[in-house]
Amino acid sequence: MQIAIVLYDRFTALDAVGPYQVLSNVPGAEVVFAAERAGRVSDEERCLHLSAEAALADVPRPDIVVVPGGPGQHDQMDDGALHDWLRAADRGTAWTTSVCTGSLILGAAGLLTGRRATSHWLALGELGRHGAVPVAERVVFDGKYVTAAGVSSGIDMALTLAARIAGDETAQAIQLGIEYDPQPPYDAGSPDRAPAEIANAMRARSRFHAAGSA
Amino acid sequence: MQIAIVLYDRFTALDAVGPYQVLSNVPGAEVVFAAERAGRVSDEERCLHLSAEAALADVPRPDIVVVPGGPGQHDQMDDGALHDWLRAADRGTAWTTSVCTGSLILGAAGLLTGRRATSHWLALGELGRHGAVPVAERVVFDGKYVTAAGVSSGIDMALTLAARIAGDETAQAIQLGIEYDPQPPYDAGSPDRAPAEIANAMRARSRFHAAGSA
Repeated sequence: MQIAIVLYDRFTALDAVGPYQVLSNVPGAEVVFAAERAGRVSDEERCLHLSAEAALADVPRPDIVVVPGGPGQHDQMDDGALHDWLRAADRGTAWTTSVCTGSLILGAAGLLTGRRATSHWLALGELGRHGAVPVAERVVFDGKYVTAAGVSSGIDMALTLAARIAGDETAQAIQLGIEYDPQPPYDAGSPDRAPAEIANAMRARSRFHAAGSA
Repeated sequence: MQIAIVLYDRFTALDAVGPYQVLSNVPGAEVVFAAERAGRVSDEERCLHLSAEAALADVPRPDIVVVPGGPGQHDQMDDGALHDWLRAADRGTAWTTSVCTGSLILGAAGLLTGRRATSHWLALGELGRHGAVPVAERVVFDGKYVTAAGVSSGIDMALTLAARIAGDETAQAIQLGIEYDPQPPYDAGSPDRAPAEIANAMRARSRFHAAGSA
């Protein structure tokens, strides 16, 4: 079972590494980090550098695709090599997935048209402009298309997917292995429950704000 | 505020990247991934490769040290360059921290003697053999020494630390930014609440089992 995690300049590291840490533990999983060109790919802070061991062209038939989000998503919205690869790979995948604004890339490639999907809370409106039906849930399944909300939600998405692939016991063992018994210090991880002034300040600063999406 | 995240062969990726995603958003943070030698460092699966931009020797005075865990921890327990660096760096840090079995390395370097500390649930007993007072909590503060339980707990640790450094509002904004509103599919992330047969099977397979630590 080949799992291709797509990297591009200025991706968000946890979007990719959260699902990686879970899915790499599914029996039979072979994960490959792939980018348009193989080599070092820098995250949004240009501080963390992950190695893409393969070019997308070298991974034509993955069983699972994971597309992370991040500020660099903005530069991946035009038709081109990544979209071509996503559409071709999607014809053979068992699961096509995204985390955070990765769903905007899937949408721009035409893969979410008419499908229920989610994204980072600031990007949900924008997701609707790319043909998807935006849903404010943490993990959204629509057939084989699985989208997760912002950044850390990729862990929940991957555990849910691990259960679909390998069963409840395997997913529970993975969860216990990574000791995923979250105890956030605040109930501030959702715009509905975070202090309103903090959420509003983030909306005002958001690159999606001008589009009225959040 | 310089934050040194220590890498070594066969570290666990999420141990490093969870805290990174949080702490890199603290105002004034400058994160550097550092290893005994600069260059590419491979994770436990030898599938994910992160770039250590600096050698430890090039980062003599970090304000914060983060030591991840992972299967490779076992090879970092002897006195040597990493322990020397940890002891020297610790003399100047504001915070010395670890995730998962990273606390065993801090302990072996002599930095947790008599201190309350935690580790991956399978390694708590082993932690006691390195001079610490093991505590089965998710995040443990003892003065400037901050240790987190297994893998995913580094996110909770880093958010708690972000609040100490920069205040509640900043930490809440970071939590909302990474949409950390966890919804695990099972209540299986703790050995007390996971199915007993799953926890027992993991104990039996654990590399700490022979030492009777879990």
